[in-house]
This record gives sequence, structure tokens and C-alpha cells, in this order.
Amino acid sequence: MTVIADTPKPPYYAVIFTSIRSQTDNGYNKMAEKMMTLAQQQPGFLGVESAREGVGITVSYWQNLQDIKHWKANTEHLEAQETGRKLWYEAYRVRIAKVEKDYGL
Amino acid sequence: MTVIADTPKPPYYAVIFTSIRSQTDNGYNKMAEKMMTLAQQQPGFLGVESAREGVGITVSYWQNLQDIKHWKANTEHLEAQETGRKLWYEAYRVRIAKVEKDYGL
Repeated sequence: MTVIADTPKPPYYAVIFTSIRSQTDNGYNKMAEKMMTLAQQQPGFLGVESAREGVGITVSYWQNLQDIKHWKANTEHLEAQETGRKLWYEAYRVRIAKVEKDYGL
Repeated sequence: MTVIADTPKPPYYAVIFTSIRSQTDNGYNKMAEKMMTLAQQQPGFLGVESAREGVGITVSYWQNLQDIKHWKANTEHLEAQETGRKLWYEAYRVRIAKVEKDYGL
């Protein structure tokens, strides 16, 4: 993803997912792609931005908190989360934040 | 920055700065380092995470909105912002968001 998400006027929500990968590949890239595609099909999805350079940062944008809960509880996503905790990530942090204001160039 | 910011218990604020660089280097790296150092010295600064891979994502964390305004109005930072708009960035978006919840591994 090399684009800036074209999100609507605030307020909306951001999920900031910061992670350090483990040495274990084991299907990670395939799953990451799959989850990216699946996320974009969920209700309330507004956009996503992602970069990895040492640390990985993926910010996904959502209409409201209910949409975020719904995506977190998606069956395939739950499996990915579990494998992530067990295999793919050395550490991660998820932050749920309400975007109050934005501006840009 | 290859670390996950060790932020306190929410609520606190995040500034999500997503950018596409221009082809122009012209002092960018030096200024980026300087701004990173300077930000960390500001009141209310809680941490920062940054990665560039096509798109650049820098998320800085702050105690409150006043701290963010104060940093935005910093004289050296204002100069950097101006050069950023003129030279270094093809496009960017700044989102100011209140972190309501976090969890991790």
C-alpha cells in the first residue's frame, strides 16, 4: 500500500497497529495480503495505510467502534490474530483512536 | 525508529502523519532527524513510531491537544513544515486522534 487513505471528514476511527515481526515467515505474507483484502470488504471500512521499516505500522480507518469490533470478531481474522500472537509477531500494540481533525496537502 | 512506543494508559492523543515524499532530498534527512529529536523534548510528548515503505507513516503520541498545538507552533518546526510543503512532500495528511483504548503483546 503506497497511498494515503482518502478518508471522509472526521469524526471517524483509526486502528493503529504497530508491530515487530518475529523471524518466522510461515505463511505471513499470504495471510497479511488476505487480511488486507478481507478488511476492505467489511462494513464501515474507510481506508488503510501501511509501511514496515524495522517496525511495522498499519493504520486502518473505520466509520465507528462497532465496525472495528465486527472486524476484530471476524472468524478468519480471529485465526490470523491467533497465529500472529503465536508465530509472526515478537511484539505488537493496537491503539483505537477517534480521529477528531485532519488536514493535508 | 524501530520500537513500539511505550505509551501510558489511555486516554492520550495520536498525531498520524502519512506522507508521500517528492524526489527532492535537499536536507530532508537531516531535518527529519532534527525534528524527531526536537519533538521528544516537547512538553507532553509520550512517544513516536515511524516507518517508510512507499508511504511514510509517523505516529507521535501526546498527553493532550494543547501539547500538539504547542509543537505545531514551534518556530523550528514551522520552518520545517513550510519547507515540507514546498519541497519534500508530494502529498501528506495529518490526523489528530484521541486514543481511547490499547492492548498488545
